[in-house]
Amino acid sequence: MKTIQFTKMHGLGNNYIYIDLFKQSLQGRDLSLLAQQLSCVKTGIGADGMILIAPSQVAPVKMRIFNKDGSEGKNCGNGLRCVAKYVYEHKIVTDNEFLIETLSGCVVAKVEEKEGTVISVTINMGKPIFENKKIPFNSSLERTIRKTISFNDQDYDVTILSMGNPHIIFYVDDILQAPVTTLGPIVEKDERFPEGVNVEFVEVVNEGEISFRVWERGSGVTEACGTGACAAVVSSVLNQFTNKNKETVVHLDGGDLFITWRNDGDVWMKGPAVTVCEGVFYINQEDSDV
Amino acid sequence: MKTIQFTKMHGLGNNYIYIDLFKQSLQGRDLSLLAQQLSCVKTGIGADGMILIAPSQVAPVKMRIFNKDGSEGKNCGNGLRCVAKYVYEHKIVTDNEFLIETLSGCVVAKVEEKEGTVISVTINMGKPIFENKKIPFNSSLERTIRKTISFNDQDYDVTILSMGNPHIIFYVDDILQAPVTTLGPIVEKDERFPEGVNVEFVEVVNEGEISFRVWERGSGVTEACGTGACAAVVSSVLNQFTNKNKETVVHLDGGDLFITWRNDGDVWMKGPAVTVCEGVFYINQEDSDV
Repeated sequence: MKTIQFTKMHGLGNNYIYIDLFKQSLQGRDLSLLAQQLSCVKTGIGADGMILIAPSQVAPVKMRIFNKDGSEGKNCGNGLRCVAKYVYEHKIVTDNEFLIETLSGCVVAKVEEKEGTVISVTINMGKPIFENKKIPFNSSLERTIRKTISFNDQDYDVTILSMGNPHIIFYVDDILQAPVTTLGPIVEKDERFPEGVNVEFVEVVNEGEISFRVWERGSGVTEACGTGACAAVVSSVLNQFTNKNKETVVHLDGGDLFITWRNDGDVWMKGPAVTVCEGVFYINQEDSDV
Repeated sequence: MKTIQFTKMHGLGNNYIYIDLFKQSLQGRDLSLLAQQLSCVKTGIGADGMILIAPSQVAPVKMRIFNKDGSEGKNCGNGLRCVAKYVYEHKIVTDNEFLIETLSGCVVAKVEEKEGTVISVTINMGKPIFENKKIPFNSSLERTIRKTISFNDQDYDVTILSMGNPHIIFYVDDILQAPVTTLGPIVEKDERFPEGVNVEFVEVVNEGEISFRVWERGSGVTEACGTGACAAVVSSVLNQFTNKNKETVVHLDGGDLFITWRNDGDVWMKGPAVTVCEGVFYINQEDSDV
């Protein structure tokens, strides 16, 4: 029987099976099928997908993400933090700051550790993009920062930007009453967003703290969306609710993220990464349709 | 950090985290909370629940089941097969036939092995009960074997019996067209079943083979219900579709079971048990509300 060593980790509930390719090979294996087998909670371990931790030509480590359905993903903020924790704790890197290669380029990760255990990870999530054309959002305006836009014949003050993927931010007085499941799907599918949009609702708690809920493009309600939390902080700075170059605490359903839009334009996101379990997976199911 | 050794196993997709109390102790631990932590796919491993494999005063091994929600269950045919596989492969028992203590009494398990690996397990599921009062089913009849009963003003030929829990069996010409999700919930909640009922649909393939789908009491559509498959075979013998004292193959959505209603009145169920993975679980989440 074939076995694979695995580690399950999560960041704010966003959970993956991590496979370390520094110590084992998956050569010749159907990675898409393996991701489905590992992710299936009935006959496998159960997860949002599989992440490979692999050697890289351009960085100390490369990450590859496979979703539950077997498709390959580009990037994932919660997954990046877990990869950073793993490679630091397993001494694949020795510096506290290092590069991780992803399908959408290299990102900088910094780990904070206590007696060899990583307690939080900070990731450079890059610069926000405001041009409507690049987001993409079809509009006669060049940018959409605190503008009145109409959905279903109702006017809303919104900010629209990209963090590599499109986001629209609505401010609400009470996050618990936010119309996530009603307005979310309408805005996500609005034809002015040719690639769809992540719909975010933000309640400003004070100038260092916001509450956040999201309707994710293609996924619906999720507990944590790293790029969405970054977009919400950028928007809140532009709307003068929070401050540039200062950390803002973002309360998500899955836990807290700590986000700073620095003066140089980069957005840094700090958050937790948790090891759930590790062990050996038995591949019994070569031919099963999981 | 505290750790717990675990094994994840499944029987026809019915999956649990198994904890071996012969080699570790959970003394002082909140078992209900632990079951919830292990079962949660977001922050734990992910499973239908937790099963403890423990020493017994009256048998070589005792099993205790905790559901995903932390409640303790009485018994589970798919879980019993996995416990039997585990204790045999880990040499907690050495005979191929042994007793397993459960909250609803001791049951006999027989393992079939090949080079030390258990490939199937047969469990004595006990004797069917036909008295309507004991099932319980409120009726002027004493028994309900191939009788016409009306639901929603439509007549159906059904058989009703208990395998420790109540079952009603409907025969259909095409299992794929069976009204599982429409008739199932109506019959489950019919007031003539004071404790509800598991609603089963059976297509007779030939005298040694039936196809089976179930609407489980309290769970809705499930892929495998061991007691339901036993009830279906007993019913099929009484309806002269299949034979007593001969094995009937039952095709369930999750896989096949092999069931024999023996001449002495006991129903024996044979089926697979699969080890998914094993390793160490890190208890990070003492205070989390998973």
